[in-house]
Amino acid sequence: MPIITLTTDFGLSDHFVGVMKGVIFSIAPKASIVDISHLVTPFETAEAAFLIGESYRFFPKKTVHVVVVDPGVGTARRPILVEAAGQYFIGPDNGVLSMVYTKTPSKVREITNTRLFLGNVSQTFHGRDIFAPVAARIASGKARPTQAGKLIDDYLRPHFDKPERTGTRCWAGSVLKVDRFGNLITNFHIEDFPHVRTRPIVMIPGVSRVELLVNNYAEGPSNEAAVIVGSSGYLEVVVNQGSAARLLGCGAGSPVELSIY
Amino acid sequence: MPIITLTTDFGLSDHFVGVMKGVIFSIAPKASIVDISHLVTPFETAEAAFLIGESYRFFPKKTVHVVVVDPGVGTARRPILVEAAGQYFIGPDNGVLSMVYTKTPSKVREITNTRLFLGNVSQTFHGRDIFAPVAARIASGKARPTQAGKLIDDYLRPHFDKPERTGTRCWAGSVLKVDRFGNLITNFHIEDFPHVRTRPIVMIPGVSRVELLVNNYAEGPSNEAAVIVGSSGYLEVVVNQGSAARLLGCGAGSPVELSIY
Amino acid sequence: MPIITLTTDFGLSDHFVGVMKGVIFSIAPKASIVDISHLVTPFETAEAAFLIGESYRFFPKKTVHVVVVDPGVGTARRPILVEAAGQYFIGPDNGVLSMVYTKTPSKVREITNTRLFLGNVSQTFHGRDIFAPVAARIASGKARPTQAGKLIDDYLRPHFDKPERTGTRCWAGSVLKVDRFGNLITNFHIEDFPHVRTRPIVMIPGVSRVELLVNNYAEGPSNEAAVIVGSSGYLEVVVNQGSAARLLGCGAGSPVELSIY
Repeated sequence: MPIITLTTDFGLSDHFVGVMKGVIFSIAPKASIVDISHLVTPFETAEAAFLIGESYRFFPKKTVHVVVVDPGVGTARRPILVEAAGQYFIGPDNGVLSMVYTKTPSKVREITNTRLFLGNVSQTFHGRDIFAPVAARIASGKARPTQAGKLIDDYLRPHFDKPERTGTRCWAGSVLKVDRFGNLITNFHIEDFPHVRTRPIVMIPGVSRVELLVNNYAEGPSNEAAVIVGSSGYLEVVVNQGSAARLLGCGAGSPVELSIY
Repeated sequence: MPIITLTTDFGLSDHFVGVMKGVIFSIAPKASIVDISHLVTPFETAEAAFLIGESYRFFPKKTVHVVVVDPGVGTARRPILVEAAGQYFIGPDNGVLSMVYTKTPSKVREITNTRLFLGNVSQTFHGRDIFAPVAARIASGKARPTQAGKLIDDYLRPHFDKPERTGTRCWAGSVLKVDRFGNLITNFHIEDFPHVRTRPIVMIPGVSRVELLVNNYAEGPSNEAAVIVGSSGYLEVVVNQGSAARLLGCGAGSPVELSIY
Repeated sequence: MPIITLTTDFGLSDHFVGVMKGVIFSIAPKASIVDISHLVTPFETAEAAFLIGESYRFFPKKTVHVVVVDPGVGTARRPILVEAAGQYFIGPDNGVLSMVYTKTPSKVREITNTRLFLGNVSQTFHGRDIFAPVAARIASGKARPTQAGKLIDDYLRPHFDKPERTGTRCWAGSVLKVDRFGNLITNFHIEDFPHVRTRPIVMIPGVSRVELLVNNYAEGPSNEAAVIVGSSGYLEVVVNQGSAARLLGCGAGSPVELSIY
């Protein structure tokens, strides 16, 4: 049973996602299709990169992940196919797949074999004309990854915000994403900051001091922010049954300072 | 073909729902997954209870319904498995499954068998670590319900608003939910108030009098509210091609008075 | 593998779509269900007609498309089944299927065979009680299209805005739809206006002049509108990584003038 996931900024009001699924089922009628999100902020490649980077580990081997946030559609930017962790990733070479290939040993191919595409390739909807049909052919075994095109190593490696050390015990990071609950997902990962679990900390998202580390959302007091090690390993600033984003006036990109004592 | 439904407050912007589906397909590759809604108001367990309570009857036997609105994730609140009407229901013991087990003969088990979970259970994402994998194992027949844990009978039985009699011919109820069209779904059910169909009524949602009972939306006049027996059997206040919520200034929780003459 | 698509104005917060899928899987357990959109503006039959008209070509033969935007549910308006392009279309006879049957040779039947419906048909939710079960029976081969009812030819043929000639080189059209990116999809189709590709044009959406024709979104300058031949063949007014709707203050229905020199 081939599995194909979709991550786009196409929204849910238009027919774009449905059309991609029509193309997929025309080629791979037995596929199961999973929507990761179609509400990526328009053109925000880093947000798409984060979503697929956090998701793929939970899918079985051979899953094909399609990521289409593609402001440069129709230009010289290349379509690429990434093999990593026994799975496949397809999207434009604009960084949307970079949280896979910068973190896991990967083979990256430029997709050049036009026989894997739909008949007429538009300049504005490669999700339909290139990415969906290539994904369906790979997922169904109708094409092998090696048929897509040659290995390349000059694919885009965007710089993602990583916390920077600003003092003996002090780092400057930022908010990666605000989730639906208003939790501030920061770019501090527990693997890089294991002492957070055992030593006193002060985290300053925006201008507010947060010193309380809790184990789960309900442990935090109401109307007060706390720090949690989130389900992806990133430190999050949260409010028990409330929105940290609203309480603290922070959003994606807001600065976050961390001190560990 | 195992069927698993999902009802959550996770929204559609984040990767949470996609990750749950990855976990399910890793265990039950042939499952069909149906989204009931992921736009439950955050933390609103009663809204989730209503949605699954209105939905499950239309699914085939053996369907596994997963409901995750879970502000207490990571605390002592228990995960439970409910068997009712030949189907299975999985979620936290916080009332989200109560519109099933208070209305239909049910067996309720505490889920204690950690071998049915993912390897590492986080304190913040039991949808991924507990509920999805248990659902996938039950749905695919890899685990039997009896393996989940022991029968319990001290599960949460929340008090849901039922209309209260306030006079000989008069009841005080409330708006359960506003649907996408602005229809006010009240907690008056036609089974409890069958005379609505044959006698004159006055319904007062908020401060507005509505006396007209119609058979379908189009029968109502424009820009004027009417009462209808909705598709779930609840009385609804509706406006033909308009929003009763907006016209009458009512929302979930608004008081609704009913008189039958 | 039967495929069923759904296009509705039911939104994603309520249980309506999930319930339709439960009904479908109860009858056709092997179906794959594809959501085209459930965010059609409430009651906007023309918007639904556009979405399915743009989508169906990309689905395999025998796909069954269900379209439910149905302000007249419960009244005398008829349910219909359309056969066109080797596929099936089911919905109310209110124009939602008209961008199929006015553009492609079609057989249209009134659905009168109540044995294909759910047991009790409500007056308010034919998506659940009529359209979903008929679609599932047709898609799974449990019923043949001819069993649905007799051929009719007095189905609704709504007038859709087509550009009108207003001068030797001048036409008056309108915006069909604004997509998620704020692109203005006009009702000028490249098949009717092929000279757009080779001659100077002036397009005036609302009150703003746009003279630049580009091949893809990224070719346009920032903060300035350009015209593009969209992926469906309609001319679109777009802004590179921006919203033409916001920049030009236009929306669905806004007038668009086109001159070709």
